Amino acid sequence: MTTFPRRIALLGSTGSIGRQTLDVVRRFPDHFQVVALAARSNVTLLAQQVQEFHPSLVACFADTQGVEQAVRTQLPEAILGPQGLLAVATYADADIFVAATSGLMGLQPTLAAIGAGKTVAIANKETLVMAGHLVMNAAHRAHVAILPIDSEHSAIWQCLHGESKSEIRRLILTASGGPFRRASLEQLRAVTVEQALAHPTWRMGAKITIDSATLMNKGLEVLEAHWLFDVPYEQIEVVVHPESIVHSMVEFIDGSLKMQASLPSMHLPIMHALAYPTRLPSAETGLVRDLHWPSVAHLNFEELDIPRFPCFRLALEAARLSGTYPSALVGADEEAVELFLTGQIGFLEIAELIEAVLERHQSISYPDIAATIEASAWARAMVRTLSKSSVRHI
Amino acid sequence: MTTFPRRIALLGSTGSIGRQTLDVVRRFPDHFQVVALAARSNVTLLAQQVQEFHPSLVACFADTQGVEQAVRTQLPEAILGPQGLLAVATYADADIFVAATSGLMGLQPTLAAIGAGKTVAIANKETLVMAGHLVMNAAHRAHVAILPIDSEHSAIWQCLHGESKSEIRRLILTASGGPFRRASLEQLRAVTVEQALAHPTWRMGAKITIDSATLMNKGLEVLEAHWLFDVPYEQIEVVVHPESIVHSMVEFIDGSLKMQASLPSMHLPIMHALAYPTRLPSAETGLVRDLHWPSVAHLNFEELDIPRFPCFRLALEAARLSGTYPSALVGADEEAVELFLTGQIGFLEIAELIEAVLERHQSISYPDIAATIEASAWARAMVRTLSKSSVRHI
Repeated sequence: MTTFPRRIALLGSTGSIGRQTLDVVRRFPDHFQVVALAARSNVTLLAQQVQEFHPSLVACFADTQGVEQAVRTQLPEAILGPQGLLAVATYADADIFVAATSGLMGLQPTLAAIGAGKTVAIANKETLVMAGHLVMNAAHRAHVAILPIDSEHSAIWQCLHGESKSEIRRLILTASGGPFRRASLEQLRAVTVEQALAHPTWRMGAKITIDSATLMNKGLEVLEAHWLFDVPYEQIEVVVHPESIVHSMVEFIDGSLKMQASLPSMHLPIMHALAYPTRLPSAETGLVRDLHWPSVAHLNFEELDIPRFPCFRLALEAARLSGTYPSALVGADEEAVELFLTGQIGFLEIAELIEAVLERHQSISYPDIAATIEASAWARAMVRTLSKSSVRHI
Repeated sequence: MTTFPRRIALLGSTGSIGRQTLDVVRRFPDHFQVVALAARSNVTLLAQQVQEFHPSLVACFADTQGVEQAVRTQLPEAILGPQGLLAVATYADADIFVAATSGLMGLQPTLAAIGAGKTVAIANKETLVMAGHLVMNAAHRAHVAILPIDSEHSAIWQCLHGESKSEIRRLILTASGGPFRRASLEQLRAVTVEQALAHPTWRMGAKITIDSATLMNKGLEVLEAHWLFDVPYEQIEVVVHPESIVHSMVEFIDGSLKMQASLPSMHLPIMHALAYPTRLPSAETGLVRDLHWPSVAHLNFEELDIPRFPCFRLALEAARLSGTYPSALVGADEEAVELFLTGQIGFLEIAELIEAVLERHQSISYPDIAATIEASAWARAMVRTLSKSSVRHI
């Protein structure tokens, strides 16, 4: 896949990553062409995108009857429901499938895209966390590349260009530390939704912003790195880097360390995945701001204080236990974050509920898709049950 | 050149880089074999090295009759004079030629090694600064790789692995800033030899340590980078980084920046040049100390204050003027630093003398070896003349 224009099938076009993917396409019309678009429920924006990019195939998951009605009015040609997403993922005219959704919705389309021989650019954390073993095995069998769209994993990928995977000593993921990097446990207990949504360096959706505040997000990234780069958990570390300039690092067996840096930008990892191995000139596009030394004068690195961020520990425990534990982790976290965002539980209760759910989880080894989805659904339900009882205080 | 053991011909084996090259060979006996050794005058150490590494060919430049006598006694098999160095550089059984000398002595042997089809690992600054056009043209014609042994250029090289040269936006060389990073012009005027020899992060020979204090060394590195990576001077920048952890950076056209880092170590760039594209495991060798985050907690970057470091400006001016100006710069600097080290001139007079010499220089375009050497010799003589007169204060 080295020629342009590349034909893109985009799942999750109305979300944050989806919209930024279309920004990149808009600035590089000679390089990319959108051939298929799918969204969950934002029909108005999807219709605008269809008008601008003229995809040959449009799909909308349409999770309510209201959305379904809107689709029939505004986008009568769109395919509704899960089969629409699968049609986009496997669309014959696409070269590359971009999984830009969050949550479970990306899992089956991603596996379908791999099966159809598409290069997959993946921004969907849950797919790799829950089903990394299935995704990477399928990609290996189909000789399909899984390219990260995510600043940390793109950084690691870039540091590995021209290097041998067998010469990696450690992957070092950087973490901004989120808004509560310096908060005490007492202060964390009293955190409000507004405080948790105010991320110091990145603007993202609500769920991932809360996951960044609890460091769950960084824990999930450790699992993603494990699957994407086939590196054991013992060789993956996290260091807090409040400036979010160095996006991650790779240390090699000779003691040499490579880092990748930029001002915070999601457009950069998106461009890199879409155009790889070509780098596109961003200077005149305004997509990536120039990083000037020494205006970026100080880069700081601190140890992650794990006791204050139990979600991070829980993610690594689920990773090591494997089986359906990571799926239960994802499901429990989704539900617990929702309870926090709707004011039903406190900030530290997110971790308490997840831990209580993981303790009750009956894992199975080498789960298939159905089992991973089931484990996640079970965990969501268990969070709801526990949140209403007093049992969760363990 | 991908098989081991690699057979090494080493010029300058008793100097700092030469000894560290032999450290690497000693720790990786399955990877490297020393087949030829050459030194200038340290016969005792050269004889010890011959006993340890059993090269098939030994040479000694022997710049005095005393040294010549010592060679005849201790190393009767050694070839004396410049022809010995050329024999080492072109030795048929060698795969890779390491130019580890400083000064002019490396120039002709390096060109001879290229002519003989050897991969060249180059630590010799003067060769590239004075004759970069000749060296790179010859290497291009002979399809020979010129590999840097130098922390900054090795860093750039490593950042470019797997990348396309046409996608470079800028090379950013880091500079420790030397011992006088914060000194005022007044303080610089009063600098003693002892102060100038006390480099904060690197231990090196006297000449290069003074060049680091004046920032001449960083200026020469800009010229080297230009030749090694074929990047115009306008795309090469220098930023002060006092910790000497990030050894240099490359910014690409998409706004992505790669940096290479380690604790200060010359063994690492030596290993990288000798074993490329393989990375050798340094962990048990003690050659490269582990860099631990967050024990390396802060990386700082500052602008280079060029008015306080006129040698840096002069190097860039000579670079832009090209012709024999860079050779005159090198010759003038060598002589001026010697005058400073022997207490005959003050620290700021190094730059004053060099500037006065460059102003008097009659350059020729596209000089051959003879012309580059002549320009350098002329500049040395002119420094001596001017240092005895009052004309130099311009």
